[in-house]
Amino acid sequence: MSLISIDQLSKDDFASLFELARNIEQGNYDRETAKRNILVPLFLEPSTRTRLSFETAMLRLGGQVLHVPNIKDLAVSKGESLKDTIRVISSFGDIIVMRTPQDPVIHFADQYASVPIINGGNGCDEHPTQALLDLYTIYKEKGRLEKLNIALVGDLKHARTIHSLLKGLSYYNVTLFLISPKELRVPKTIRTILRERAVSFVEIQGLEEVIWELDVIYIVMLQHHRMKDPQLVKELRQTYYCVTPELLQAAKQDVTILHPLVRQDEVAPEVDALPNAAYFRQVQNGVSVRMAILCRMLNGWLSS
Amino acid sequence: MSLISIDQLSKDDFASLFELARNIEQGNYDRETAKRNILVPLFLEPSTRTRLSFETAMLRLGGQVLHVPNIKDLAVSKGESLKDTIRVISSFGDIIVMRTPQDPVIHFADQYASVPIINGGNGCDEHPTQALLDLYTIYKEKGRLEKLNIALVGDLKHARTIHSLLKGLSYYNVTLFLISPKELRVPKTIRTILRERAVSFVEIQGLEEVIWELDVIYIVMLQHHRMKDPQLVKELRQTYYCVTPELLQAAKQDVTILHPLVRQDEVAPEVDALPNAAYFRQVQNGVSVRMAILCRMLNGWLSS
Amino acid sequence: MSLISIDQLSKDDFASLFELARNIEQGNYDRETAKRNILVPLFLEPSTRTRLSFETAMLRLGGQVLHVPNIKDLAVSKGESLKDTIRVISSFGDIIVMRTPQDPVIHFADQYASVPIINGGNGCDEHPTQALLDLYTIYKEKGRLEKLNIALVGDLKHARTIHSLLKGLSYYNVTLFLISPKELRVPKTIRTILRERAVSFVEIQGLEEVIWELDVIYIVMLQHHRMKDPQLVKELRQTYYCVTPELLQAAKQDVTILHPLVRQDEVAPEVDALPNAAYFRQVQNGVSVRMAILCRMLNGWLSS
Repeated sequence: MSLISIDQLSKDDFASLFELARNIEQGNYDRETAKRNILVPLFLEPSTRTRLSFETAMLRLGGQVLHVPNIKDLAVSKGESLKDTIRVISSFGDIIVMRTPQDPVIHFADQYASVPIINGGNGCDEHPTQALLDLYTIYKEKGRLEKLNIALVGDLKHARTIHSLLKGLSYYNVTLFLISPKELRVPKTIRTILRERAVSFVEIQGLEEVIWELDVIYIVMLQHHRMKDPQLVKELRQTYYCVTPELLQAAKQDVTILHPLVRQDEVAPEVDALPNAAYFRQVQNGVSVRMAILCRMLNGWLSS
Repeated sequence: MSLISIDQLSKDDFASLFELARNIEQGNYDRETAKRNILVPLFLEPSTRTRLSFETAMLRLGGQVLHVPNIKDLAVSKGESLKDTIRVISSFGDIIVMRTPQDPVIHFADQYASVPIINGGNGCDEHPTQALLDLYTIYKEKGRLEKLNIALVGDLKHARTIHSLLKGLSYYNVTLFLISPKELRVPKTIRTILRERAVSFVEIQGLEEVIWELDVIYIVMLQHHRMKDPQLVKELRQTYYCVTPELLQAAKQDVTILHPLVRQDEVAPEVDALPNAAYFRQVQNGVSVRMAILCRMLNGWLSS
Repeated sequence: MSLISIDQLSKDDFASLFELARNIEQGNYDRETAKRNILVPLFLEPSTRTRLSFETAMLRLGGQVLHVPNIKDLAVSKGESLKDTIRVISSFGDIIVMRTPQDPVIHFADQYASVPIINGGNGCDEHPTQALLDLYTIYKEKGRLEKLNIALVGDLKHARTIHSLLKGLSYYNVTLFLISPKELRVPKTIRTILRERAVSFVEIQGLEEVIWELDVIYIVMLQHHRMKDPQLVKELRQTYYCVTPELLQAAKQDVTILHPLVRQDEVAPEVDALPNAAYFRQVQNGVSVRMAILCRMLNGWLSS
């Protein structure tokens, strides 16, 4: 079965995945797990880090990766339908990792694929493996996933990593600070889920006013490529958030700074040297979490 | 030795190759056949499925594949001759699969390569591995390659898969229906070969008039990118062939529909669900046939 | 530790590397040396042969290679800094091979990478692995690296392979003929190094006048892409060097012709057939030398 939404996984799934990721980091895993298996990266939107992170994960498990060209070089140039592309490409590998610019295309693709698909980001909707590595990073940095004050900061409307992460966090006893300009509030569907699951959260606009309370700051860049009004982009840019050493002086000493990257100006480069800056460790955790996900899926996880 | 034309192979070669492909499908083969061997894909024309099919085949045999860039990113940008490119690239792998926009370039390349070349399509001329997988698919679908009524439909002039397939079919006791607009008849050279080999064939323009007789319908898209007259392309498009469920009502119940893909409108999507639609199985057979070809070539096939 | 400049290596390092390369060519090496290791090619300038040569070397050692996109498809499109790209990419592999258009960028990158970097050419500065394969080729062709008359011919100013090679040759008892138009003389920094190391060299403009003395002719193409004055490029082109069979009639019978490739018109195609033409063997030697370099670096060479 495919992994399209983080909703497919239970809290126990998370825990078992994180345990596996930890074992992988300690070298306790079968290095031939993916031997003779082929991963097919099908990215209909550009991607460097998600794609390379998955490729590395597959290779570290002893598997292989197909060289699928960029979308502009795919058979679309000869007028092929996505339906046909998916069916054909299913013959060439054992698992597909796919990114789509529109939200529903991933579901459409999943209907026609004859092998499992991992959602590598579908439009503004979800990015489940990113959420898993984010949760795992919080777990590693803080030693727990419960009883934390976690701020999600910035473009909460368009950032799919935020949407998947919020669904994931909703399983835990945390207090969430959703901090964004009013134009970029988290979508109503997500807010509804948080309420249904009785998650404690507040929506505010200022990061400074709560900074002293926070255990984790998860900040994302302005998803300007998803916005149509250049005037609004310009305005939002001017007042967008930035984590600086000055700001952090008001924070808990061990506050953890996370960012899914790529970043623009949301985290000042001077923060990089602080022990609080966990975003490069987050990238490394991404490889082990994706190895764990691939391990499980190649072994029939989610199939029952 | 290289595999440039299907004419290099005998009927016995076909049979032995198909047997090997069948064994591969059943798991009866050495999974380390290609260990430490490197395939170099050199596609001077865009390709997705042929290239990926070969890559998958090589990886499934335990081999590796080099990441050769698209032609536009190759050293031509620094003014290198194809002759030098071929000689240099020969140092980097054990077998080259190559596509060329002009027919004779593949022969030119073969002269300068120091490793075997597999023709992955040269202009309008040949595409031998496609023909082999087509023959293998007919064999699997119908249980035999003799005593069949086979229609080849569409742009028989420019489609290289047709040319290689006709040469291959000429070894068998089949009746061929070459169905095309008069502007797109099969080239004279191919017609001569069919006559010399005493193959029973007719050339007609209408598919409907013989549909009830056919065991196999092999249809190809209009190769508009090989045609210079946009007015003619437009006209031919309007009257081009399309296999629909309605048309198939007049056909044998077990007629097999083949298409090398990519398709445009030659096969209606409603046909996909019918058991007759064999074109996605054809893609899968492509991997096993190419594994068989690589196996043989890496073991010195064609070298004596 | 990274390999940025050939100056990091001693004469003994060269000798030991060449011995390993020779052993590799004879099959005396561990074919699993790089098992579970990943090479990350990060080419900020286009490259075919250096990149593919390294990829082949890594695969032949049992390792793997990541599919990093062309620079134009990297995360720069989302505005990522090179600093972040390097730190992120360090998480995805064990060794980076990097080419940069500007000289100092490679040092900048090396500061931020958490894995060793191999310099695959930085601007007009250095190309140490090319120099090593050049030296190895001279050694194999002539049986020695001492007591040779070696001409370096052409654009000695901009060709980084020349700069690294000269530093490498400075360890040996050779006589160097630096042959170039006066506008393209070797940079002063290199000349100073040669003088400090007491290397015997002359700078002249004509190849004909010394051709009879030479054991090795190493010629490079005009690096027109590094030059800003199109008028000067045009003039230099008209009088640029070309090794022809006619010219070689005045040379020693066993003179060795080397060229790092790609070539334009510096070596006439008729020379290719002569036993003196060693530039395609040079390409092959490149794979074994790079295997040797990777072997050593993966085993901690340069780390103490």
